[in-house]
Amino acid sequence: MMQRAIVFLVGAGLLAQNAGTLTEQYRDSASRLIDASLADEGGMEKLAYLCDRIGNRLSGSPSLEKAVAWAAAQMKADGLSNVVTPRVKVPHWVRGNESAALLEPVAHPLTILGLGGSVATSKRGITAEVVPVSSFEDLDRKGRAAVEGKIVLFNVPYDGYNRTVVYRTTGPSRAARLGAVAALVRSVTPISLQSPHTGALEYTDGFPKIPAAAVTIEDALLIQRLVDAGNPVTAHLEMDARMLPDADSANVIGEIPGRERPDEVVVIGGHLDSWDVGAGAQDDGSGCITALEAAHIIHALGLTPRRTLRVVFWTNEENGGAGGDAYRAWAGDTVKNHVAAIEMDGGAEKPTGFGLSASGDLQSMLGRTREIGALLARIDAASILPGGGGADIAPIMADGVPGLALRTVGTHYFDWHHSRADTTDKVKLEDLRANIAAMAVMAYVLADMPAALRQATSSTR
Amino acid sequence: MMQRAIVFLVGAGLLAQNAGTLTEQYRDSASRLIDASLADEGGMEKLAYLCDRIGNRLSGSPSLEKAVAWAAAQMKADGLSNVVTPRVKVPHWVRGNESAALLEPVAHPLTILGLGGSVATSKRGITAEVVPVSSFEDLDRKGRAAVEGKIVLFNVPYDGYNRTVVYRTTGPSRAARLGAVAALVRSVTPISLQSPHTGALEYTDGFPKIPAAAVTIEDALLIQRLVDAGNPVTAHLEMDARMLPDADSANVIGEIPGRERPDEVVVIGGHLDSWDVGAGAQDDGSGCITALEAAHIIHALGLTPRRTLRVVFWTNEENGGAGGDAYRAWAGDTVKNHVAAIEMDGGAEKPTGFGLSASGDLQSMLGRTREIGALLARIDAASILPGGGGADIAPIMADGVPGLALRTVGTHYFDWHHSRADTTDKVKLEDLRANIAAMAVMAYVLADMPAALRQATSSTR
Repeated sequence: MMQRAIVFLVGAGLLAQNAGTLTEQYRDSASRLIDASLADEGGMEKLAYLCDRIGNRLSGSPSLEKAVAWAAAQMKADGLSNVVTPRVKVPHWVRGNESAALLEPVAHPLTILGLGGSVATSKRGITAEVVPVSSFEDLDRKGRAAVEGKIVLFNVPYDGYNRTVVYRTTGPSRAARLGAVAALVRSVTPISLQSPHTGALEYTDGFPKIPAAAVTIEDALLIQRLVDAGNPVTAHLEMDARMLPDADSANVIGEIPGRERPDEVVVIGGHLDSWDVGAGAQDDGSGCITALEAAHIIHALGLTPRRTLRVVFWTNEENGGAGGDAYRAWAGDTVKNHVAAIEMDGGAEKPTGFGLSASGDLQSMLGRTREIGALLARIDAASILPGGGGADIAPIMADGVPGLALRTVGTHYFDWHHSRADTTDKVKLEDLRANIAAMAVMAYVLADMPAALRQATSSTR
Repeated sequence: MMQRAIVFLVGAGLLAQNAGTLTEQYRDSASRLIDASLADEGGMEKLAYLCDRIGNRLSGSPSLEKAVAWAAAQMKADGLSNVVTPRVKVPHWVRGNESAALLEPVAHPLTILGLGGSVATSKRGITAEVVPVSSFEDLDRKGRAAVEGKIVLFNVPYDGYNRTVVYRTTGPSRAARLGAVAALVRSVTPISLQSPHTGALEYTDGFPKIPAAAVTIEDALLIQRLVDAGNPVTAHLEMDARMLPDADSANVIGEIPGRERPDEVVVIGGHLDSWDVGAGAQDDGSGCITALEAAHIIHALGLTPRRTLRVVFWTNEENGGAGGDAYRAWAGDTVKNHVAAIEMDGGAEKPTGFGLSASGDLQSMLGRTREIGALLARIDAASILPGGGGADIAPIMADGVPGLALRTVGTHYFDWHHSRADTTDKVKLEDLRANIAAMAVMAYVLADMPAALRQATSSTR
């Protein structure tokens, strides 16, 4: 009896807590969205088209232009309205031919990928001793005497992406500042099967721009072993990478216009561009397709939300961020009516929920977002944590738009990221479906719930 | 009291069981061998020299000749006696240039590695439709009508090495029998980061020899998706692989001569040759070095065994087996005095114990080997299971020599095997040391124990 009474009280408490919550209000529509998402075939078909037929999509490439045209047509076919492709000028870097090899103490071809934005070597290449460093502190300790005229190798073990990627982005200029003539960067990845991973570098104004390439973990460790054994290691590097004049590209935008407050907007999307290797499947074909298919399912179920749900495929996330900036400019004053934005750019492994960043009353917003998240308990994606957003929505978040990121288990994302292995097969159908479900429920409720996550501050565009 | 009594009885039982066992007799020497092995530095230094400085070592290559010379010198430096390098004629296959690409429905470069022993394409290459099959049954069901004049792709998921590798070895001839003009084989590996894995094919007499190459899992799945979507897939393949006249190579042999019964021999070793990509570190530099370092430690501790302990580095395991056959011929009548042979050719991940195959009273031999295995409990390598041997000792096992294989957890071996990723860094120092310990104890006790594992049947060589 006691036990039964306690169970009853707890049950009543939960009911009271949920009565009138978003969890209660949207249980039925969430259930329909999840059912449809978990049976979805179209998402994987579209991802395969984008990644297998169009392929990788670096800014300035013909394939990105093809992807823009395909995406706009696909948005229309999927029932979105107001489909537009506002033009965006993007940096146009091309890799060209590249190769590297050890010359001494052994002849050994190095497996490299030039870093995005790198300058070329001279035509006859660079031949110099390689000096491995284990950190920026190690580089500075060794100093100009050890580094001048040499190739610096940043042989830094993977310690989480954000802590390690700084060697790729700022390492080349840090080495150039001390007189290095080129930089090699151990690929930013937890594992390797002789797999080089590219990505953008960021030259610092005022230092010479030196050529820079990623090497595999295997080759970085080989060089380290040879140096540790007391041998000077000499390498030859040839790259004819170059930066062409800015190219035309476009964001791709489509909408489900809101039924009551069409001027208020929830944005969902990913970036359409990718690096020039692999197929850009996880990064970030999966984010684009998840957003598109979520909107498609919302539309197909006739669930027109109160506010406008806008799908955005940003261009040029990988090497410039021009798409995110251009979207902010395109939105103009209407940014005040953006009540939330969700970017998905962490791949489509099994979803766990969402992260949220917002100015204003974050705790209250987290609480309401958790009421929505609870609708995803069925697919184990109910976790709502502080910390969201993404590179493409950062410009509108700077104007106060709450930013969410779809989060996944993230087990293998950085194994594939920016490498030849980021291919369609890495996206599992059941995981993609679960991501579509999570995105559909979160996007729909954010766009439909009576009181917006943040109050729109203007009613005109 | 009851409990204590039971514990006492069990304890007494164990003691009784172990009294006079090999476990008891060799506890001290095993302990010394394990201590020395777990502090060993020389093994990793030698492995790094072989793999980093000499590099991969395909039969017929100059690097294999270098490795033979180095190994003989290293055996002498490590205190082995009677170091010889009996010459062996080996097949001499060279890869040459090779490339492949999809032409339709998309232009896409394929990442391939020609299979060892493959013939070349004509100079202008082969352009043909690709027909994927999921099994030999699927191939036969499709039949000549579907396959003639086409390139057959064996797109068979990894299902354990032995069950899957048959598509690499016999697939090309099975396809040629039905009129296929070339074969592509999905790489035999559980995981891939666009990683092709080579390995030997075996042409069947009476069918045309067609060119054959491994493709990555990613490319195999891409082709499958394109075909499943209803598109004919066309590929172009160019290979100028060729078989040259047999080349000179050698087995490398060194000994710790037995102190009482030098005519009786325990053989331990691995194969010195490798494929022509990566560094042949796990396959099978690790096996050679483990055997050599085990013998070196036995010698350095002054533990001269009763019988002769012979270290053998076989040549040409990967594509011919000439080294194993030549060793059998070289041993001649003395094979009768080989009381055991241990081959290590499964990599140097964390060891678990040994497998044993033998004619005669296997159960009794397993029991005695388990007494030795119990000495390895300290490093969790005490497991002794039926089923041992290896390709290089198969010829002497056919003459009745009990064959053992060192066994490991085998977690990643086939991720690296026959690929560019089989590099020194994949061998972990603590795992190599544990393998050396396991090999040293098993080899020493087999060579020293009063009654041989199998009775030598002749006392002359």
